[in-house]
Amino acid sequence: MIAQEILSKLIQPNASKLVLVVFDGLGGLPDEKTGRTELESARHPNLDKFAEEGCSGLSTPISPGITPGSGPSHLALFGYDPFRYEIGRGLLDTLGIEFPLQPGDVAARGNLATIDEDGLLTDRRAGRIATEKTSQLCKLLDEIVIDGIKFFVRPVKEHRVSVVMRGAGLSDKINDTDPQKTGVKPLKALGQTGDGRSEFTAGVVNKFLEVVGEKLAPHKPANYLLLRGFAEMITIPSFSEIYKVKAAAIAIYPMYRGLARLLGMDVLPLPEDVAAEFRILRENFSQYDFFFLHIKGTDSAGEDGDFARKVRVIEEADRYFSIFRELCPDVLVVTGDHSTPAKLKGHSWHPVPFLLWSKAGRRDKTKKFGESECRSGELGHFNARETMPLMLASAGRLLKFGA
Amino acid sequence: MIAQEILSKLIQPNASKLVLVVFDGLGGLPDEKTGRTELESARHPNLDKFAEEGCSGLSTPISPGITPGSGPSHLALFGYDPFRYEIGRGLLDTLGIEFPLQPGDVAARGNLATIDEDGLLTDRRAGRIATEKTSQLCKLLDEIVIDGIKFFVRPVKEHRVSVVMRGAGLSDKINDTDPQKTGVKPLKALGQTGDGRSEFTAGVVNKFLEVVGEKLAPHKPANYLLLRGFAEMITIPSFSEIYKVKAAAIAIYPMYRGLARLLGMDVLPLPEDVAAEFRILRENFSQYDFFFLHIKGTDSAGEDGDFARKVRVIEEADRYFSIFRELCPDVLVVTGDHSTPAKLKGHSWHPVPFLLWSKAGRRDKTKKFGESECRSGELGHFNARETMPLMLASAGRLLKFGA
Repeated sequence: MIAQEILSKLIQPNASKLVLVVFDGLGGLPDEKTGRTELESARHPNLDKFAEEGCSGLSTPISPGITPGSGPSHLALFGYDPFRYEIGRGLLDTLGIEFPLQPGDVAARGNLATIDEDGLLTDRRAGRIATEKTSQLCKLLDEIVIDGIKFFVRPVKEHRVSVVMRGAGLSDKINDTDPQKTGVKPLKALGQTGDGRSEFTAGVVNKFLEVVGEKLAPHKPANYLLLRGFAEMITIPSFSEIYKVKAAAIAIYPMYRGLARLLGMDVLPLPEDVAAEFRILRENFSQYDFFFLHIKGTDSAGEDGDFARKVRVIEEADRYFSIFRELCPDVLVVTGDHSTPAKLKGHSWHPVPFLLWSKAGRRDKTKKFGESECRSGELGHFNARETMPLMLASAGRLLKFGA
Repeated sequence: MIAQEILSKLIQPNASKLVLVVFDGLGGLPDEKTGRTELESARHPNLDKFAEEGCSGLSTPISPGITPGSGPSHLALFGYDPFRYEIGRGLLDTLGIEFPLQPGDVAARGNLATIDEDGLLTDRRAGRIATEKTSQLCKLLDEIVIDGIKFFVRPVKEHRVSVVMRGAGLSDKINDTDPQKTGVKPLKALGQTGDGRSEFTAGVVNKFLEVVGEKLAPHKPANYLLLRGFAEMITIPSFSEIYKVKAAAIAIYPMYRGLARLLGMDVLPLPEDVAAEFRILRENFSQYDFFFLHIKGTDSAGEDGDFARKVRVIEEADRYFSIFRELCPDVLVVTGDHSTPAKLKGHSWHPVPFLLWSKAGRRDKTKKFGESECRSGELGHFNARETMPLMLASAGRLLKFGA
């Protein structure tokens, strides 16, 4: 695999347009009766036509056998080494609400929760209180300063909040305070013994949570705050700078919007549904030369074990792909970030169907877009981190390596 | 991929004969009417028969999407990491004329050129003067010494010469003096500021070019010298030592002869055409156990965008493959170093058809040698750097790794 730094030197921008459509968790496992996966069971004439005109393959998200979370699998698709850049969930949630994180910040995911008079957790989600109520409570907690560290507390959705700590000497090497069960006390933050920054951060967090407890006491059921997934703001090279593209992200879910923002993509206005995602793509097509369009429904249906719904999400999305006959991008890739087979009700390690449509491609025998046909496609089995080199090459944007 | 150092320890020579035939730029893209690539359009019954008896695959020269130059793509075929060993074009040209480079030397490509009375370039190639004239002029310039650095100036072909600098403290970190256009003055060599060796080298080069200008003045149109592609002699492990073979190279073009020499192969006498290449192979078959035979015509035709000529080059070469029915090598590989689709008129990143014929191979369903059939061959998609391990294994020359 070519190093991102070397690849970057080979890139020569041109007027081409590149589109990467990611169906989250696209890959599946066959239905036992029909022998067909979700993608193979769905009717998707537009995707099939692009597959027939282009070429296909199977992409391995991280490495064989490894089931990725959505963060690393997207990083890999964008060409970043997911082992080199670890992005905590707390960071992604926080970026997802467009909080302007700064270097040195530590972010965490928070839950407003309920504790009883003995301090034992009775509800980890405070009855899933409304987002509006959470917003009010966040105002009480926002910008508390403890030992020189400022805490920002911002609403995400329902009982979920984002907490950002800002100040000198912070570390993310501290444990979750969420015990992940009720009937027990929330955990104390503990530093790693001998690690001064980590011990300092843990101390500050514990003091902060005491203050939070006092301020929230009158607001039962939301009378406590659980924190998890502490993550330091990381330094990661800008997608637009590495690949010399003007990149736009179109996504509904905060995490993917946050990831795109972290990589320096422009995140386009929040679409309400898939139809809106494609509408936004069309409206902005002349303004950018790289588009990342993320479709979440396939993953959610897979996670729920709902084979039929996953099929429906694909069929519905397929209709919008006719837009590319009008927009005529130079390179269109349709793939997933990983597999989420309904049969497994969760992410999996199985390779992901991958479709590359461009004028410069070598056409293969693929007639339909699905796991079985992708298996014998021109692109073979390859690592997801090859996606960007393949797209850039197909767009005529890569100079020759060496004489 | 196994490290060359580890592979080397597994090698146990035997009496087998290995042949690697490289059609430069073999891979192609389909003709829009027939849907067949150059290789698929050509009639090549001998190659097809070997494909039927052997097995096939698609080889990726560097990594997906990366279009290689001929240097890195050949290094990869020979099992060297092309990112670790970067070989400048100046070095290869110089090796191609059999100049005995030494460690510390810096080589460059030179053009005899024409400047007018104001010192402006009027012809970057001095009217493509004859090789013979260039040879005479080189004698005027050869072995000039400036500040302890000796300059060797040797003819290559027509207006092209090779310049080698020898002495202490040289660097290749200097710019081309060839401005790549006429109507301007040749560029001054500039060192990298603060890099003593580079600044010293640039100074010496500028002084040398002044002397060159004086000596050539009476020889208009060839009254100046442009230099480009400065490259230091590199240290690279010997092919014969790593793989424990006695290796011979058969090639017409200087660059490939130079590369083979750099790797320590014996370079057999210059053949005038492809027929002579195979004749030389036959004559020397008993003397070596590894042969690299390079066929340039496929790449040249591809570069010219001449689909039909590329087809013809393959068809003509195919005739000579009957020789292997007589010579009976233990392992025969036929492949390319990269693709040069006539459609793109240049090198490309597309994977390259690969044919492996040996007694130890697993026969697959390949009936014809071409991109489409190779796609589903036994060898799958693999990196070109796996070529040597596959050949050595097929020749029974690799010991078991581990107990």
